Amino acid sequence: YYQLFDADRTQLGAIYIDASCLTWEGQQFQGKAAIVEKLTSLPFQKIQHSITAQDHQPTPDSCILSMVVGQLKADDDQVLGFHQTFLLKNFQGAWVCTNEVFRLALHNV
Amino acid sequence: YYQLFDADRTQLGAIYIDASCLTWEGQQFQGKAAIVEKLTSLPFQKIQHSITAQDHQPTPDSCILSMVVGQLKADDDQVLGFHQTFLLKNFQGAWVCTNEVFRLALHNV
Repeated sequence: YYQLFDADRTQLGAIYIDASCLTWEGQQFQGKAAIVEKLTSLPFQKIQHSITAQDHQPTPDSCILSMVVGQLKADDDQVLGFHQTFLLKNFQGAWVCTNEVFRLALHNV
Repeated sequence: YYQLFDADRTQLGAIYIDASCLTWEGQQFQGKAAIVEKLTSLPFQKIQHSITAQDHQPTPDSCILSMVVGQLKADDDQVLGFHQTFLLKNFQGAWVCTNEVFRLALHNV
């Protein structure tokens, strides 16, 4: 995910479906088209993520819950912490992201 | 949840079921008994949480995905950031926590 995000985030659409929800810094987006539009319109030219901790769990509905903690550097800005949660579901034979929440770590430091 | 956690965390058992998973700072626990034992054995006498951001989403399986970002103060230690994800499911008429992940913000600052 982060490799693709950092290299070419227009390609991320493949992991979302029309039922997918994204909450990005408190703003809500639903559906593949709205999510890809949000991700590709983020105001930086280049970005680099580094993951410092990640946890994954199976859920009772055969999904995978993942919480990722890390740092990112956008353009020449300072390095910022972030945390991101994904809920992944096997949908018609492929793993898709049905739910995603992103927050910068500005909020708790 | 945090009110109960801060006041008397032995009472938190009511929100977990035997299928519940908790990952606490990378350590995994499964089932109500193991989770309550972990939460009640955390090595502090008093703790205070303050929430700075919280996001909630419905999931395709009628669950609620929540990501909480905040700060906590345990005993007389310094204030630390934390992030915590919950997956809540309606189970036999009550909302229970099937999946939970906790990390201190030490990892990304």
